[in-house]
Amino acid sequence: MRGNVQVGACTLEVRVRYAETDAMGYLHHSNYLVYFEMGRTELLRQCGFSYRQMEEAGFFYVVAKLEVRYRLPARYDDVVALTTTTERISPVRIDHAYRLTRGDDLLTEATSTLVCVDRNGKPKAVPDDIYALMVN
Amino acid sequence: MRGNVQVGACTLEVRVRYAETDAMGYLHHSNYLVYFEMGRTELLRQCGFSYRQMEEAGFFYVVAKLEVRYRLPARYDDVVALTTTTERISPVRIDHAYRLTRGDDLLTEATSTLVCVDRNGKPKAVPDDIYALMVN
Amino acid sequence: MRGNVQVGACTLEVRVRYAETDAMGYLHHSNYLVYFEMGRTELLRQCGFSYRQMEEAGFFYVVAKLEVRYRLPARYDDVVALTTTTERISPVRIDHAYRLTRGDDLLTEATSTLVCVDRNGKPKAVPDDIYALMVN
Amino acid sequence: MRGNVQVGACTLEVRVRYAETDAMGYLHHSNYLVYFEMGRTELLRQCGFSYRQMEEAGFFYVVAKLEVRYRLPARYDDVVALTTTTERISPVRIDHAYRLTRGDDLLTEATSTLVCVDRNGKPKAVPDDIYALMVN
Repeated sequence: MRGNVQVGACTLEVRVRYAETDAMGYLHHSNYLVYFEMGRTELLRQCGFSYRQMEEAGFFYVVAKLEVRYRLPARYDDVVALTTTTERISPVRIDHAYRLTRGDDLLTEATSTLVCVDRNGKPKAVPDDIYALMVN
Repeated sequence: MRGNVQVGACTLEVRVRYAETDAMGYLHHSNYLVYFEMGRTELLRQCGFSYRQMEEAGFFYVVAKLEVRYRLPARYDDVVALTTTTERISPVRIDHAYRLTRGDDLLTEATSTLVCVDRNGKPKAVPDDIYALMVN
Repeated sequence: MRGNVQVGACTLEVRVRYAETDAMGYLHHSNYLVYFEMGRTELLRQCGFSYRQMEEAGFFYVVAKLEVRYRLPARYDDVVALTTTTERISPVRIDHAYRLTRGDDLLTEATSTLVCVDRNGKPKAVPDDIYALMVN
Repeated sequence: MRGNVQVGACTLEVRVRYAETDAMGYLHHSNYLVYFEMGRTELLRQCGFSYRQMEEAGFFYVVAKLEVRYRLPARYDDVVALTTTTERISPVRIDHAYRLTRGDDLLTEATSTLVCVDRNGKPKAVPDDIYALMVN
Protein backbone atom coordinates (compact mmCIF):
# COMPACT_ATOMS: atom_id res chain seq x y z
CA MET A 1 0.00 0.00 0.00
CA ARG A 2 1.23 3.43 -0.90
CA GLY A 3 -0.29 5.26 1.99
CA ASN A 4 0.53 4.49 5.54
CA VAL A 5 -1.22 7.20 7.42
CA GLN A 6 -2.92 6.56 10.74
CA VAL A 7 -6.14 8.47 10.24
CA GLY A 8 -9.08 9.03 12.48
CA ALA A 9 -10.99 6.90 14.88
CA CYS A 10 -14.59 7.01 15.93
CA THR A 11 -16.58 5.48 18.76
CA LEU A 12 -20.17 4.43 18.36
CA GLU A 13 -22.59 3.14 21.00
CA VAL A 14 -24.90 0.31 19.99
CA ARG A 15 -27.66 -1.33 22.00
CA VAL A 16 -27.91 -5.09 21.32
CA ARG A 17 -31.25 -5.93 19.72
CA TYR A 18 -33.31 -8.97 20.68
CA ALA A 19 -33.34 -10.19 17.08
CA GLU A 20 -29.52 -10.19 17.12
CA THR A 21 -29.29 -12.73 19.93
CA ASP A 22 -29.26 -16.49 19.46
CA ALA A 23 -30.52 -19.49 21.45
CA MET A 24 -27.43 -19.25 23.67
CA GLY A 25 -28.70 -15.84 24.77
CA TYR A 26 -25.70 -14.06 23.24
CA LEU A 27 -25.27 -11.57 20.42
CA HIS A 28 -24.75 -13.94 17.48
CA HIS A 29 -21.14 -13.85 16.28
CA SER A 30 -22.16 -12.88 12.71
CA ASN A 31 -23.78 -9.67 13.94
CA TYR A 32 -20.48 -8.20 15.13
CA LEU A 33 -19.66 -7.76 11.44
CA VAL A 34 -22.79 -5.66 11.06
CA TYR A 35 -21.59 -3.44 13.91
CA PHE A 36 -18.12 -3.11 12.33
CA GLU A 37 -19.78 -1.94 9.12
CA MET A 38 -21.72 0.67 11.08
CA GLY A 39 -18.41 1.82 12.57
CA ARG A 40 -16.95 2.29 9.08
CA THR A 41 -20.03 4.25 7.97
CA GLU A 42 -19.66 6.66 10.88
CA LEU A 43 -15.91 6.98 10.43
CA LEU A 44 -16.43 8.07 6.81
CA ARG A 45 -19.20 10.46 7.79
CA GLN A 46 -16.78 12.04 10.27
CA CYS A 47 -14.45 12.75 7.30
CA GLY A 48 -17.17 14.90 5.78
CA PHE A 49 -18.91 12.65 3.26
CA SER A 50 -21.07 9.54 3.29
CA TYR A 51 -20.57 6.03 2.01
CA ARG A 52 -24.01 6.29 0.43
CA GLN A 53 -22.75 9.17 -1.72
CA MET A 54 -19.70 7.11 -2.67
CA GLU A 55 -21.93 4.30 -3.93
CA GLU A 56 -24.12 6.76 -5.82
CA ALA A 57 -20.92 7.97 -7.51
CA GLY A 58 -20.00 4.39 -8.48
CA PHE A 59 -17.42 3.53 -5.81
CA PHE A 60 -18.00 0.46 -3.63
CA TYR A 61 -15.92 -0.80 -0.73
CA VAL A 62 -15.96 -4.58 -0.51
CA VAL A 63 -14.58 -6.62 2.39
CA ALA A 64 -11.59 -8.68 1.23
CA LYS A 65 -10.28 -9.97 4.55
CA LEU A 66 -11.49 -10.15 8.11
CA GLU A 67 -10.10 -11.41 11.41
CA VAL A 68 -12.12 -11.48 14.61
CA ARG A 69 -11.25 -12.53 18.16
CA TYR A 70 -14.28 -13.01 20.37
CA ARG A 71 -13.27 -12.65 24.03
CA LEU A 72 -16.49 -12.12 25.99
CA PRO A 73 -20.13 -12.36 24.90
CA ALA A 74 -22.63 -9.50 24.68
CA ARG A 75 -26.28 -9.96 25.63
CA TYR A 76 -29.66 -8.48 24.72
CA ASP A 77 -30.07 -4.84 25.75
CA ASP A 78 -26.36 -4.41 26.56
CA VAL A 79 -25.01 -1.06 25.44
CA VAL A 80 -21.64 -1.71 23.83
CA ALA A 81 -19.07 0.78 22.51
CA LEU A 82 -17.36 0.16 19.19
CA THR A 83 -14.16 2.01 18.38
CA THR A 84 -13.21 1.88 14.70
CA THR A 85 -9.77 3.00 13.60
CA THR A 86 -8.27 3.42 10.14
CA GLU A 87 -4.93 1.63 10.40
CA ARG A 88 -3.62 1.98 6.84
CA ILE A 89 -5.05 3.57 3.76
CA SER A 90 -4.27 3.84 0.05
CA PRO A 91 -6.51 5.01 -2.82
CA VAL A 92 -7.72 1.42 -3.42
CA ARG A 93 -7.59 -0.17 0.03
CA ILE A 94 -8.31 0.51 3.71
CA ASP A 95 -7.32 -1.50 6.77
CA HIS A 96 -9.49 -0.96 9.83
CA ALA A 97 -9.19 -2.14 13.42
CA TYR A 98 -12.13 -2.56 15.80
CA ARG A 99 -12.47 -2.83 19.57
CA LEU A 100 -15.86 -3.61 21.09
CA THR A 101 -16.17 -2.95 24.80
CA ARG A 102 -18.84 -2.95 27.52
CA GLY A 103 -17.69 -0.78 30.38
CA ASP A 104 -14.14 -1.92 31.15
CA ASP A 105 -14.58 -5.30 29.47
CA LEU A 106 -13.05 -5.92 26.06
CA LEU A 107 -15.56 -8.10 24.23
CA THR A 108 -14.11 -8.37 20.74
CA GLU A 109 -11.13 -7.26 18.67
CA ALA A 110 -11.04 -7.37 14.89
CA THR A 111 -9.30 -6.15 11.76
CA SER A 112 -10.49 -5.92 8.18
CA THR A 113 -9.20 -5.03 4.73
CA LEU A 114 -11.52 -3.34 2.26
CA VAL A 115 -10.90 -2.81 -1.43
CA CYS A 116 -12.55 -0.08 -3.51
CA VAL A 117 -14.21 -1.44 -6.67
CA ASP A 118 -16.46 -0.18 -9.48
CA ARG A 119 -19.96 -1.45 -10.28
CA ASN A 120 -18.44 -4.50 -11.98
CA GLY A 121 -16.27 -5.43 -9.02
CA LYS A 122 -13.00 -4.24 -10.64
CA PRO A 123 -10.56 -2.42 -8.31
CA LYS A 124 -10.80 1.34 -8.77
CA ALA A 125 -9.01 4.15 -6.96
CA VAL A 126 -11.07 6.56 -4.88
CA PRO A 127 -11.19 10.07 -6.52
CA ASP A 128 -8.44 12.42 -5.33
CA ASP A 129 -10.78 14.87 -3.60
CA ILE A 130 -12.45 12.13 -1.56
CA TYR A 131 -9.10 10.51 -0.77
CA ALA A 132 -7.83 13.85 0.48
CA LEU A 133 -10.76 14.01 2.92
CA MET A 134 -10.11 10.45 4.07
CA VAL A 135 -6.45 10.95 4.95
CA ASN A 136 -6.79 14.35 6.60
CA MET B 1 -57.87 -7.42 -9.42
CA ARG B 2 -58.69 -8.60 -12.89
CA GLY B 3 -57.41 -12.11 -12.50
CA ASN B 4 -58.80 -14.51 -9.97
CA VAL B 5 -57.11 -17.72 -10.86
CA GLN B 6 -56.00 -20.15 -8.20
CA VAL B 7 -52.58 -21.04 -9.54
CA GLY B 8 -49.98 -23.40 -8.24
CA ALA B 9 -48.65 -24.24 -4.86
CA CYS B 10 -45.26 -25.43 -3.79
CA THR B 11 -43.88 -26.97 -0.64
CA LEU B 12 -40.36 -26.32 0.54
CA GLU B 13 -38.50 -27.89 3.46
CA VAL B 14 -36.29 -25.60 5.54
CA ARG B 15 -34.02 -26.49 8.43
CA VAL B 16 -33.97 -23.76 11.12
CA ARG B 17 -30.48 -22.24 11.42
CA TYR B 18 -28.85 -21.40 14.73
CA ALA B 19 -28.37 -17.78 13.65
CA GLU B 20 -32.14 -17.51 13.09
CA THR B 21 -33.01 -18.28 16.71
CA ASP B 22 -33.26 -15.70 19.48
CA ALA B 23 -32.57 -15.65 23.22
CA MET B 24 -35.94 -17.33 23.81
CA GLY B 25 -34.58 -20.32 21.87
CA TYR B 26 -37.17 -19.89 19.10
CA LEU B 27 -36.95 -19.03 15.43
CA HIS B 28 -37.19 -15.23 15.59
CA HIS B 29 -40.54 -14.01 14.27
CA SER B 30 -38.92 -11.79 11.60
CA ASN B 31 -37.25 -14.80 9.97
CA TYR B 32 -40.56 -16.34 8.94
CA LEU B 33 -40.78 -13.55 6.36
CA VAL B 34 -37.46 -14.73 4.93
CA TYR B 35 -38.91 -18.22 4.58
CA PHE B 36 -42.04 -16.87 2.88
CA GLU B 37 -39.83 -15.09 0.35
CA MET B 38 -38.00 -18.38 -0.32
CA GLY B 39 -41.40 -19.97 -0.93
CA ARG B 40 -42.27 -17.32 -3.53
CA THR B 41 -38.90 -17.80 -5.25
CA GLU B 42 -39.51 -21.55 -5.60
CA LEU B 43 -43.13 -21.07 -6.70
CA LEU B 44 -41.96 -18.82 -9.55
CA ARG B 45 -39.20 -21.25 -10.49
CA GLN B 46 -41.84 -23.97 -10.71
CA CYS B 47 -43.62 -21.81 -13.34
CA GLY B 48 -40.53 -22.08 -15.51
CA PHE B 49 -38.60 -18.86 -14.88
CA SER B 50 -36.74 -17.24 -12.02
CA TYR B 51 -37.32 -14.10 -10.01
CA ARG B 52 -33.66 -13.25 -10.58
CA GLN B 53 -34.34 -13.09 -14.33
CA MET B 54 -37.36 -10.87 -13.67
CA GLU B 55 -35.20 -8.39 -11.77
CA GLU B 56 -32.55 -8.47 -14.49
CA ALA B 57 -35.35 -7.58 -16.95
CA GLY B 58 -36.39 -4.63 -14.75
CA PHE B 59 -39.41 -6.06 -12.92
CA PHE B 60 -39.41 -6.07 -9.13
CA TYR B 61 -42.00 -7.51 -6.78
CA VAL B 62 -42.32 -5.48 -3.59
CA VAL B 63 -44.29 -6.52 -0.52
CA ALA B 64 -47.23 -4.14 0.04
CA LYS B 65 -49.12 -5.98 2.77
CA LEU B 66 -48.49 -8.83 5.12
CA GLU B 67 -50.47 -10.64 7.81
CA VAL B 68 -48.98 -13.35 10.00
CA ARG B 69 -50.48 -15.53 12.73
CA TYR B 70 -47.87 -17.27 14.85
CA ARG B 71 -49.41 -20.36 16.49
CA LEU B 72 -46.50 -22.51 17.67
CA PRO B 73 -42.76 -21.78 17.82
CA ALA B 74 -40.04 -23.47 15.76
CA ARG B 75 -36.63 -24.26 17.25
CA TYR B 76 -33.05 -24.66 16.08
CA ASP B 77 -32.51 -27.64 13.77
CA ASP B 78 -36.25 -28.26 13.31
CA VAL B 79 -37.14 -29.21 9.76
CA VAL B 80 -40.26 -27.26 8.84
CA ALA B 81 -42.38 -27.45 5.69
CA LEU B 82 -43.60 -24.27 4.02
CA THR B 83 -46.49 -24.45 1.57
CA THR B 84 -46.85 -21.32 -0.56
CA THR B 85 -49.98 -20.83 -2.64
CA THR B 86 -50.89 -18.15 -5.16
CA GLU B 87 -54.36 -17.05 -4.08
CA ARG B 88 -55.08 -14.29 -6.60
CA ILE B 89 -53.07 -12.84 -9.42
CA SER B 90 -53.25 -9.94 -11.88
CA PRO B 91 -50.50 -8.48 -14.10
CA VAL B 92 -49.51 -5.99 -11.37
CA ARG B 93 -50.29 -7.84 -8.16
CA ILE B 94 -50.10 -11.26 -6.49
CA ASP B 95 -51.69 -12.47 -3.28
CA HIS B 96 -50.00 -15.44 -1.63
CA ALA B 97 -50.93 -17.62 1.33
CA TYR B 98 -48.44 -19.53 3.48
CA ARG B 99 -48.71 -22.44 5.89
CA LEU B 100 -45.68 -23.48 7.91
CA THR B 101 -45.89 -26.90 9.56
CA ARG B 102 -43.68 -29.29 11.52
CA GLY B 103 -45.08 -32.79 11.20
CA ASP B 104 -48.79 -32.47 12.01
CA ASP B 105 -48.37 -29.15 13.85
CA LEU B 106 -49.39 -25.93 12.18
CA LEU B 107 -46.82 -23.35 13.29
CA THR B 108 -47.72 -20.26 11.28
CA GLU B 109 -50.24 -19.00 8.74
CA ALA B 110 -49.76 -15.90 6.67
CA THR B 111 -50.90 -13.94 3.63
CA SER B 112 -49.16 -11.27 1.59
CA THR B 113 -49.82 -8.91 -1.29
CA LEU B 114 -47.01 -8.08 -3.70
CA VAL B 115 -47.02 -5.37 -6.34
CA CYS B 116 -44.86 -5.42 -9.47
CA VAL B 117 -42.85 -2.20 -9.93
CA ASP B 118 -40.09 -0.87 -12.18
CA ARG B 119 -36.62 0.27 -11.09
CA ASN B 120 -38.11 3.53 -9.81
CA GLY B 121 -40.77 1.86 -7.73
CA LYS B 122 -43.64 2.73 -10.10
CA PRO B 123 -46.26 -0.02 -10.63
CA LYS B 124 -45.65 -1.87 -13.90
CA ALA B 125 -47.48 -4.84 -15.41
CA VAL B 126 -45.58 -8.09 -15.82
CA PRO B 127 -44.94 -8.83 -19.57
CA ASP B 128 -47.63 -10.94 -21.23
CA ASP B 129 -45.41 -13.97 -21.84
CA ILE B 130 -44.29 -14.14 -18.21
CA TYR B 131 -47.82 -13.56 -16.98
CA ALA B 132 -49.02 -16.43 -19.17
CA LEU B 133 -46.49 -18.73 -17.45
CA MET B 134 -47.58 -17.52 -14.02
CA VAL B 135 -51.28 -18.24 -14.49
CA ASN B 136 -50.91 -21.59 -16.23
CA MET C 1 -59.35 -8.21 26.66
CA ARG C 2 -60.19 -6.88 30.06
CA GLY C 3 -58.12 -3.75 29.86
CA ASN C 4 -58.70 -1.11 27.28
CA VAL C 5 -56.40 1.62 28.32
CA GLN C 6 -54.55 3.73 25.79
CA VAL C 7 -51.14 3.85 27.42
CA GLY C 8 -47.99 5.52 26.33
CA ALA C 9 -46.24 6.00 23.06
CA CYS C 10 -42.60 6.38 22.28
CA THR C 11 -40.65 7.53 19.26
CA LEU C 12 -37.29 6.08 18.35
CA GLU C 13 -34.91 7.15 15.59
CA VAL C 14 -33.11 4.41 13.69
CA ARG C 15 -30.49 4.71 10.97
CA VAL C 16 -30.86 2.03 8.29
CA ARG C 17 -27.81 -0.27 8.26
CA TYR C 18 -26.16 -1.48 5.07
CA ALA C 19 -26.61 -5.12 6.14
CA GLU C 20 -30.37 -4.50 6.42
CA THR C 21 -30.76 -3.59 2.75
CA ASP C 22 -31.37 -6.07 -0.05
CA ALA C 23 -30.43 -6.30 -3.73
CA MET C 24 -33.26 -3.89 -4.58
CA GLY C 25 -31.42 -1.28 -2.50
CA TYR C 26 -34.23 -1.08 0.06
CA LEU C 27 -34.50 -1.94 3.74
CA HIS C 28 -35.59 -5.59 3.52
CA HIS C 29 -39.23 -5.99 4.57
CA SER C 30 -38.37 -8.50 7.32
CA ASN C 31 -36.20 -5.95 9.10
CA TYR C 32 -39.12 -3.66 9.88
CA LEU C 33 -40.17 -6.30 12.42
CA VAL C 34 -36.80 -5.92 14.12
CA TYR C 35 -37.42 -2.16 14.39
CA PHE C 36 -40.91 -2.75 15.82
CA GLU C 37 -39.36 -4.97 18.50
CA MET C 38 -36.89 -2.19 19.34
CA GLY C 39 -39.87 0.15 19.68
CA ARG C 40 -41.51 -2.20 22.18
CA THR C 41 -38.28 -2.47 24.16
CA GLU C 42 -38.05 1.31 24.50
CA LEU C 43 -41.74 1.69 25.31
CA LEU C 44 -41.35 -0.74 28.23
CA ARG C 45 -38.18 0.99 29.40
CA GLN C 46 -40.14 4.27 29.45
CA CYS C 47 -42.56 2.59 31.91
CA GLY C 48 -39.66 2.15 34.31
CA PHE C 49 -38.48 -1.43 33.81
CA SER C 50 -36.81 -3.47 31.09
CA TYR C 51 -37.96 -6.40 29.00
CA ARG C 52 -34.64 -8.06 29.85
CA GLN C 53 -35.62 -8.02 33.52
CA MET C 54 -39.02 -9.49 32.64
CA GLU C 55 -37.34 -12.42 30.88
CA GLU C 56 -34.96 -12.92 33.81
CA ALA C 57 -38.07 -13.14 36.01
CA GLY C 58 -39.59 -15.80 33.73
CA PHE C 59 -42.05 -13.72 31.68
CA PHE C 60 -41.76 -13.74 27.90
CA TYR C 61 -43.76 -11.77 25.36
CA VAL C 62 -44.29 -13.73 22.14
CA VAL C 63 -45.73 -12.29 18.95
CA ALA C 64 -49.07 -13.93 18.14
CA LYS C 65 -50.28 -11.74 15.30
CA LEU C 66 -48.84 -9.13 13.01
CA GLU C 67 -50.13 -6.93 10.20
CA VAL C 68 -47.90 -4.65 8.16
CA ARG C 69 -48.65 -2.22 5.33
CA TYR C 70 -45.56 -1.15 3.44
CA ARG C 71 -46.21 2.20 1.71
CA LEU C 72 -42.80 3.62 0.77
CA PRO C 73 -39.34 2.06 0.92
CA ALA C 74 -36.46 3.09 3.19
CA ARG C 75 -32.86 3.06 1.98
CA TYR C 76 -29.38 2.64 3.43
CA ASP C 77 -28.35 5.44 5.81
CA ASP C 78 -31.87 6.90 5.96
CA VAL C 79 -32.80 8.07 9.44
CA VAL C 80 -36.34 6.90 10.09
CA ALA C 81 -38.59 7.59 13.07
CA LEU C 82 -40.64 4.79 14.62
CA THR C 83 -43.59 5.65 16.83
CA THR C 84 -44.82 2.72 18.91
CA THR C 85 -48.13 2.97 20.73
CA THR C 86 -49.83 0.61 23.17
CA GLU C 87 -53.36 0.31 21.81
CA ARG C 88 -54.88 -2.18 24.23
CA ILE C 89 -53.48 -4.03 27.19
CA SER C 90 -54.51 -6.78 29.61
CA PRO C 91 -52.35 -8.81 32.03
CA VAL C 92 -51.74 -11.49 29.35
CA ARG C 93 -51.84 -9.56 26.10
CA ILE C 94 -50.73 -6.27 24.48
CA ASP C 95 -51.76 -4.76 21.17
CA HIS C 96 -49.31 -2.27 19.68
CA ALA C 97 -49.49 0.03 16.68
CA TYR C 98 -46.47 1.29 14.75
CA ARG C 99 -45.87 4.16 12.34
CA LEU C 100 -42.54 4.46 10.57
CA THR C 101 -41.84 7.82 8.95
CA ARG C 102 -38.98 9.63 7.19
CA GLY C 103 -39.57 13.36 7.41
CA ASP C 104 -43.18 13.87 6.32
CA ASP C 105 -43.39 10.55 4.49
CA LEU C 106 -45.25 7.65 6.06
CA LEU C 107 -43.25 4.55 5.13
CA THR C 108 -45.00 1.77 7.03
CA GLU C 109 -47.93 1.15 9.36
CA ALA C 110 -48.33 -1.98 11.43
CA THR C 111 -50.12 -3.58 14.36
CA SER C 112 -49.20 -6.56 16.51
CA THR C 113 -50.61 -8.69 19.30
CA LEU C 114 -48.25 -10.11 21.92
CA VAL C 115 -49.07 -12.72 24.52
CA CYS C 116 -47.21 -13.13 27.81
CA VAL C 117 -46.02 -16.72 28.41
CA ASP C 118 -43.84 -18.63 30.86
CA ARG C 119 -40.65 -20.53 30.01
CA ASN C 120 -42.73 -23.39 28.61
CA GLY C 121 -44.78 -21.16 26.32
CA LYS C 122 -47.94 -21.33 28.46
CA PRO C 123 -49.90 -18.05 28.82
CA LYS C 124 -49.14 -16.35 32.12
CA ALA C 125 -50.33 -13.03 33.51
CA VAL C 126 -47.79 -10.30 34.11
CA PRO C 127 -47.27 -9.69 37.91
CA ASP C 128 -49.53 -7.01 39.37
CA ASP C 129 -46.73 -4.57 40.18
CA ILE C 130 -45.33 -4.68 36.65
CA TYR C 131 -48.81 -4.45 35.14
CA ALA C 132 -49.46 -1.36 37.26
CA LEU C 133 -46.36 0.27 35.76
CA MET C 134 -47.44 -0.69 32.25
CA VAL C 135 -50.90 0.85 32.44
CA ASN C 136 -49.92 4.03 34.23
CA MET D 1 -4.14 -28.72 21.62
CA ARG D 2 -3.74 -32.30 22.65
CA GLY D 3 -5.46 -33.83 19.68
CA ASN D 4 -4.28 -33.30 16.16
CA VAL D 5 -6.47 -35.57 14.17
CA GLN D 6 -7.73 -34.61 10.73
CA VAL D 7 -11.32 -35.72 11.00
CA GLY D 8 -14.14 -35.61 8.53
CA ALA D 9 -15.30 -33.11 6.00
CA CYS D 10 -18.74 -32.41 4.70
CA THR D 11 -20.09 -30.49 1.73
CA LEU D 12 -23.37 -28.64 1.87
CA GLU D 13 -25.21 -26.85 -0.93
CA VAL D 14 -26.90 -23.56 -0.07
CA ARG D 15 -29.04 -21.34 -2.28
CA VAL D 16 -28.48 -17.64 -1.58
CA ARG D 17 -31.67 -16.02 -0.23
CA TYR D 18 -32.89 -12.61 -1.32
CA ALA D 19 -32.90 -11.39 2.28
CA GLU D 20 -29.20 -12.27 2.53
CA THR D 21 -28.16 -9.87 -0.23
CA ASP D 22 -27.32 -6.21 0.27
CA ALA D 23 -27.70 -3.02 -1.78
CA MET D 24 -24.58 -3.99 -3.76
CA GLY D 25 -26.53 -7.03 -4.97
CA TYR D 26 -24.13 -9.44 -3.25
CA LEU D 27 -24.50 -11.92 -0.42
CA HIS D 28 -23.68 -9.71 2.58
CA HIS D 29 -20.30 -10.62 4.07
CA SER D 30 -21.77 -11.30 7.53
CA ASN D 31 -23.99 -14.06 6.14
CA TYR D 32 -21.03 -16.26 5.20
CA LEU D 33 -20.61 -16.85 8.95
CA VAL D 34 -24.17 -18.17 9.07
CA TYR D 35 -23.29 -20.63 6.28
CA PHE D 36 -20.13 -21.73 8.12
CA GLU D 37 -22.24 -22.46 11.20
CA MET D 38 -24.59 -24.57 9.05
CA GLY D 39 -21.52 -26.46 7.82
CA ARG D 40 -20.47 -27.22 11.39
CA THR D 41 -24.00 -28.42 12.25
CA GLU D 42 -23.97 -30.88 9.35
CA LEU D 43 -20.42 -32.05 10.08
CA LEU D 44 -21.46 -32.95 13.64
CA ARG D 45 -24.61 -34.66 12.41
CA GLN D 46 -22.43 -36.76 10.13
CA CYS D 47 -20.57 -37.96 13.26
CA GLY D 48 -23.83 -39.42 14.52
CA PHE D 49 -25.21 -36.82 16.93
CA SER D 50 -26.58 -33.30 16.77
CA TYR D 51 -25.38 -29.99 18.13
CA ARG D 52 -28.91 -29.44 19.43
CA GLN D 53 -28.51 -32.50 21.65
CA MET D 54 -25.14 -31.19 22.85
CA GLU D 55 -26.75 -27.93 23.96
CA GLU D 56 -29.60 -29.81 25.65
CA ALA D 57 -26.89 -31.71 27.57
CA GLY D 58 -25.26 -28.43 28.65
CA PHE D 59 -22.35 -28.20 26.19
CA PHE D 60 -22.05 -25.11 24.00
CA TYR D 61 -19.53 -24.38 21.27
CA VAL D 62 -18.67 -20.68 21.10
CA VAL D 63 -16.63 -19.05 18.34
CA ALA D 64 -13.35 -17.71 19.74
CA LYS D 65 -11.54 -16.80 16.53
CA LEU D 66 -12.40 -16.36 12.90
CA GLU D 67 -10.52 -15.48 9.73
CA VAL D 68 -12.21 -14.98 6.38
CA ARG D 69 -10.85 -14.19 2.91
CA TYR D 70 -13.51 -13.04 0.49
CA ARG D 71 -12.33 -13.65 -3.10
CA LEU D 72 -15.43 -13.46 -5.29
CA PRO D 73 -18.99 -12.37 -4.48
CA ALA D 74 -22.09 -14.58 -4.48
CA ARG D 75 -25.44 -13.31 -5.72
CA TYR D 76 -29.13 -13.95 -5.07
CA ASP D 77 -30.28 -17.41 -6.16
CA ASP D 78 -26.72 -18.70 -6.69
CA VAL D 79 -26.27 -22.25 -5.50
CA VAL D 80 -22.98 -22.37 -3.63
CA ALA D 81 -21.16 -25.37 -2.15
CA LEU D 82 -19.61 -25.14 1.30
CA THR D 83 -16.98 -27.68 2.34
CA THR D 84 -16.32 -27.73 6.07
CA THR D 85 -13.31 -29.61 7.42
CA THR D 86 -12.21 -30.32 10.98
CA GLU D 87 -8.56 -29.35 11.00
CA ARG D 88 -7.63 -29.96 14.63
CA ILE D 89 -9.61 -31.16 17.60
CA SER D 90 -9.19 -31.57 21.34
CA PRO D 91 -11.85 -32.16 24.03
CA VAL D 92 -12.25 -28.39 24.56
CA ARG D 93 -11.49 -26.92 21.15
CA ILE D 94 -12.08 -27.43 17.43
CA ASP D 95 -10.44 -25.73 14.47
CA HIS D 96 -12.42 -25.78 11.24
CA ALA D 97 -11.59 -24.73 7.70
CA TYR D 98 -14.17 -23.68 5.11
CA ARG D 99 -14.16 -23.36 1.33
CA LEU D 100 -17.15 -21.84 -0.43
CA THR D 101 -17.31 -22.44 -4.18
CA ARG D 102 -19.70 -21.85 -7.09
CA GLY D 103 -18.87 -24.26 -9.87
CA ASP D 104 -15.10 -23.97 -10.37
CA ASP D 105 -14.87 -20.56 -8.68
CA LEU D 106 -13.51 -20.27 -5.17
CA LEU D 107 -15.59 -17.55 -3.49
CA THR D 108 -14.38 -17.60 0.10
CA GLU D 109 -11.92 -19.34 2.38
CA ALA D 110 -12.08 -19.23 6.15
CA THR D 111 -10.91 -20.81 9.38
CA SER D 112 -12.38 -20.72 12.86
CA THR D 113 -11.60 -21.85 16.39
CA LEU D 114 -14.44 -22.93 18.66
CA VAL D 115 -14.24 -23.57 22.39
CA CYS D 116 -16.62 -25.82 24.30
CA VAL D 117 -18.16 -24.11 27.35
CA ASP D 118 -20.85 -24.79 29.93
CA ARG D 119 -24.01 -22.73 30.50
CA ASN D 120 -21.96 -20.10 32.32
CA GLY D 121 -19.42 -19.72 29.56
CA LYS D 122 -16.66 -21.62 31.40
CA PRO D 123 -14.52 -23.98 29.26
CA LYS D 124 -15.65 -27.59 29.66
CA ALA D 125 -14.40 -30.74 27.96
CA VAL D 126 -16.80 -32.61 25.70
CA PRO D 127 -17.83 -35.98 27.30
CA ASP D 128 -15.62 -38.92 26.31
CA ASP D 129 -18.31 -40.77 24.37
CA ILE D 130 -19.16 -37.73 22.24
CA TYR D 131 -15.49 -36.94 21.73
CA ALA D 132 -14.92 -40.51 20.55
CA LEU D 133 -17.62 -40.00 17.89
CA MET D 134 -16.09 -36.69 16.83
CA VAL D 135 -12.56 -38.02 16.22
CA ASN D 136 -13.56 -41.27 14.52
